[in-house]
Amino acid sequence: MKLYDQPASGNCLKARILLRQLGLDCETVVMDLFRGETRTPEHFARHPDGRVPVLELDDGRTIPESGAILLYLAEGTPLLPADRVARAHVHAWMFFEQNQIEATIASARFLAAAGRDREQPEAFADKVTRAHAALATLERGLADGRRFLAGDVYTVADIAVYAYAHVGADIGADPRAHEHVGAWLHRVEGTDGFVNDLAPFPDHVTARPI
Amino acid sequence: MKLYDQPASGNCLKARILLRQLGLDCETVVMDLFRGETRTPEHFARHPDGRVPVLELDDGRTIPESGAILLYLAEGTPLLPADRVARAHVHAWMFFEQNQIEATIASARFLAAAGRDREQPEAFADKVTRAHAALATLERGLADGRRFLAGDVYTVADIAVYAYAHVGADIGADPRAHEHVGAWLHRVEGTDGFVNDLAPFPDHVTARPI
Repeated sequence: MKLYDQPASGNCLKARILLRQLGLDCETVVMDLFRGETRTPEHFARHPDGRVPVLELDDGRTIPESGAILLYLAEGTPLLPADRVARAHVHAWMFFEQNQIEATIASARFLAAAGRDREQPEAFADKVTRAHAALATLERGLADGRRFLAGDVYTVADIAVYAYAHVGADIGADPRAHEHVGAWLHRVEGTDGFVNDLAPFPDHVTARPI
Repeated sequence: MKLYDQPASGNCLKARILLRQLGLDCETVVMDLFRGETRTPEHFARHPDGRVPVLELDDGRTIPESGAILLYLAEGTPLLPADRVARAHVHAWMFFEQNQIEATIASARFLAAAGRDREQPEAFADKVTRAHAALATLERGLADGRRFLAGDVYTVADIAVYAYAHVGADIGADPRAHEHVGAWLHRVEGTDGFVNDLAPFPDHVTARPI
C-alpha cells in the first residue's frame, strides 16, 4: 500500500496513527498540498476532491478521505466493533468530526497559520465559535465516564476526533479546558503504539500569508 | 423504531428517503430545532450534539448523525455494497458530504433563509465559495460516466450527497450548472420509491431574522 501524505495535515495524521497501531507496512508519498500538488489531473484521478490522505492499494485502486481510510483499514480489527449499534456509534462520531471539528478547528487553524484570520476575521470567528460548541459536545459525550468516545473500547472514532481536537488551543478553543475531554485525550495518547507526529505548517505557509 | 425528525432539515430528509426506499416502518417525532427543542437534557441524552435526525431503536438505544443512520439501516441491503473497497468509496463520499457540502450549502442556506447572510456577509461568502468547489468535485467524480457516486449502483452515498447538493441553487451554487451532476440528480430522483419531501423553513425562521 501507499499513503499520499502530508506531515502537517491532521487528516493524514489519522491514517499514520492507525497504520502504526495496526503494524501495517505502507509506503509514504509526501505531497505539498500547500503548493497545490494535490490539485493536478494525476491526483484528481486518485481523489476527485484533490486532497490528502489517499490510500493506494496494491492493485492501484485508491481510497480517499481520512474517515474512509480508517474504516477500511480497521475492518476486522478491535478498533472497529463488529456489533452493528456499536459500529453506528463509531460512525456517528466520525461524521460529527468531519462536520463540526475538522470544518472548524482545522479550517480556522490553517487561516490563523497563514495570517488569513486577520483578512477574514468574521469567517475565522464563526469557525472558532463552532469549535467551542463542538468541544462542548465532546464533553457531554464523555461525561458518563466512558473511557473512549464509542464506549470503553478504543476505536478509530477516537483517532479521527483526536487529530484536530487536540490542537484546538491553536485557535483559542482549548480541549483541555473540558475535564472529560482532557482526560480522554490523555487516554488516547496512552494507547499501545500511539505516536502523534503532526508536523508544524511548513515555512511557506506561515511566512507568506496567501 | 422512532425517528426524531424535522421536515425542513436535509439531514433528516436523508433518513426519510432511505426508510421509505427500504419499506421500513418508523414512527416520526417532529422536533422544532429552530426553536431549540433539540438542545434539552432529554435530547442531549439521545445525541450529545443536540441535533436531528436521531434514530431510536426499539430497545431504546439511539443512533445520531444522518450518515451513521444511513449506514446502520442500509447494512445488508443493496444500498450498501458488501465489497470492502466499494464500501470504502461509499464512506468517502459520505464523509466528503459532511465536510464539504453540508458544512457549506446547508449552513449558508440557513443563514440566507434567516436573513443572516446580510449580517455575516464574509462567513456567508466563504461558505458559497466552498460550495462551488464541492460541486466541481462532484462533477469530476461523475465525469467518467458512472451512473451513481460510488459506481453504477445506487447507494446511501447518493442519498447523503443529494440531500443538500440538490438545493445548492438556493445560495447561488446551482448543481445543475454541472452537466454530470445535473444528470446524476435526475437519476437519483428516478430511483424506486424516491420521494423528496424536504419542507421549506418554517415561518418563524424566515420571518424573524435571529
